[in-house]
Amino acid sequence: MRRPTIKDVAERAQVSLKTVSRVINDEPSVQARTRERVQEAIAGLGYQPDPSARSLRSAQSYAIGLIYDNPNPYYVIAMQNGVLAVCRETGYGLQIHPCDSSSPKLASEIIRLVQHARLAGLVLAPPMSERQELVSELIANGIRLVRVVSAAADPQDGSACIYVDDRDAAYEITEHLIQLGHSRIGFLWGGKSHGSSWERHKGYKEALHDYGIALDEALVVEGDYSFDDGFRGARRLLALPDRPTAIFGSNDEIAAGVLAAAKSSGMNVPYDLSIAGFEDSPFSKQSWPALTTAKQATEEIAQHAARRLLQEIQDRPRKALSNEGFSPQLIVRGSTAPPRPKAR
Amino acid sequence: MRRPTIKDVAERAQVSLKTVSRVINDEPSVQARTRERVQEAIAGLGYQPDPSARSLRSAQSYAIGLIYDNPNPYYVIAMQNGVLAVCRETGYGLQIHPCDSSSPKLASEIIRLVQHARLAGLVLAPPMSERQELVSELIANGIRLVRVVSAAADPQDGSACIYVDDRDAAYEITEHLIQLGHSRIGFLWGGKSHGSSWERHKGYKEALHDYGIALDEALVVEGDYSFDDGFRGARRLLALPDRPTAIFGSNDEIAAGVLAAAKSSGMNVPYDLSIAGFEDSPFSKQSWPALTTAKQATEEIAQHAARRLLQEIQDRPRKALSNEGFSPQLIVRGSTAPPRPKAR
Repeated sequence: MRRPTIKDVAERAQVSLKTVSRVINDEPSVQARTRERVQEAIAGLGYQPDPSARSLRSAQSYAIGLIYDNPNPYYVIAMQNGVLAVCRETGYGLQIHPCDSSSPKLASEIIRLVQHARLAGLVLAPPMSERQELVSELIANGIRLVRVVSAAADPQDGSACIYVDDRDAAYEITEHLIQLGHSRIGFLWGGKSHGSSWERHKGYKEALHDYGIALDEALVVEGDYSFDDGFRGARRLLALPDRPTAIFGSNDEIAAGVLAAAKSSGMNVPYDLSIAGFEDSPFSKQSWPALTTAKQATEEIAQHAARRLLQEIQDRPRKALSNEGFSPQLIVRGSTAPPRPKAR
Repeated sequence: MRRPTIKDVAERAQVSLKTVSRVINDEPSVQARTRERVQEAIAGLGYQPDPSARSLRSAQSYAIGLIYDNPNPYYVIAMQNGVLAVCRETGYGLQIHPCDSSSPKLASEIIRLVQHARLAGLVLAPPMSERQELVSELIANGIRLVRVVSAAADPQDGSACIYVDDRDAAYEITEHLIQLGHSRIGFLWGGKSHGSSWERHKGYKEALHDYGIALDEALVVEGDYSFDDGFRGARRLLALPDRPTAIFGSNDEIAAGVLAAAKSSGMNVPYDLSIAGFEDSPFSKQSWPALTTAKQATEEIAQHAARRLLQEIQDRPRKALSNEGFSPQLIVRGSTAPPRPKAR
């Protein structure tokens, strides 16, 4: 099959060659509907514009970057795959940049990176996306970006973002445990550098409050989004004289650690202990029993972020764009059940 | 801190500016030891050469590509991180390209990709790396590449590669099970498009043969490198009238599926069934019991592959370069034990 040309695109979209060229070169003065028709034709034909002309013109490489700092392979791969799906449609390459979010020179590192690789823009994953000072500095340096953040509502701070309502989903998980009959519910934090950790903790607290259950700080343990911290935290909670009958781990990795700690103590999950996670990672389906969790549509979220970034790069009028929100959904599996009735 | 300059590099390496420039521009006529000294100075100072001059000169972007098709996030992330470590040292960007290894137009897709993104070279992961015709076509189109392949010895076919001796490690795993007293040992294949699947199967067969145990084809089940195929394969083996007392899954995902199948049948692992995997993924440490497996140093392998690719890009005399081999190591954990003594 011969490679599609710009002429094929023009014919399919029923526009002039000049119009196709304008769309490809991100020039203004093309109507939104016409632009969309041309973009559909490009996607439908699998047309790949020659990037060299554009690249020389704009001094940018035809690539975007994904910036993340997350120990969870499932999350990272889902983010990458979501962004890549949009890159493939649009002919952009994806450069990946895991980085150390605690680095004091993070802003200058990222700015240098963008200049060095001449990236057209960035998708910022948490926790970098949630550091307002960092984001402002990048924008002040002319970097186009979109952020993925944890928030119950659109932060409306002028920068493009996709927001995920972790608080609401954590509320639902806690409510599910309460409705099963649990009142001693342990909570294991994720890393405090992540906004999602704070939001999930808030959801847990709000549900307890709404159901009239007093918060017992002895049941709340700090840690990171990791298996090891889940294991350690659960050991600590299970050693309490009045131990919890359910534990909510802030992600599935933590919940997996809780599961291992329960099993290594000879406990029968869910009858001796109910366990819930967050994320709907493959592990949550594969463990025995499978984990009750909240489904976070990471790949879809990343796709929306990438689409939004390309809009930013193409510099469409900002007022036409609004930020999008996602809500993770409760998924009930075998790891949660009513607590054993207490002997009178 | 001010950004290091080419002058700092020259001072640290005790060479002239011209020599540093030659090394940065990959020009020949620099002695190997001098080149190394300059590269060490560049790495030590964190110097980042300005890519634009080079890029315009060579019409290449200052990025390499990683091509893979693997459903296993742990493997993919380890490959990415290994290549990225070398990219960071050398100032290259990494573009990632998961692809469909069964696509009939794979060669032309990859060639277009390299031209489109003007990549300086590629790291090819299995199974693409093991398709000789594809590799030849890429090389014939002037693409610099290094392959990561499964092989007991250097394939010596003229292209750069890092080879991993899966056969030897699979032999060791099988031998470990035999020495525990097992003779009914099930084997679950990985995907047949991967050379590693064939090599691991060979290692299994050779160990049985060397210990005088007849191969029972009823104990060998085909499938893919996935949890689901491990679950299905194990259910089939455990339903046999004379079921195996041990199952060797070709990777840890498969072994995780075996573990879930055993638990869902109410079996006690390892006493009712020994289970071994391959890879030393985080899951293998986190499951209960933890999995006996073979440690595959994927991140290190990827680093060596990236270093070798940069040598290819710099076009050093080929005769000075030899391919490197890695051998995964047996790690014994709680999922394997002697079989229960049979009632007389």
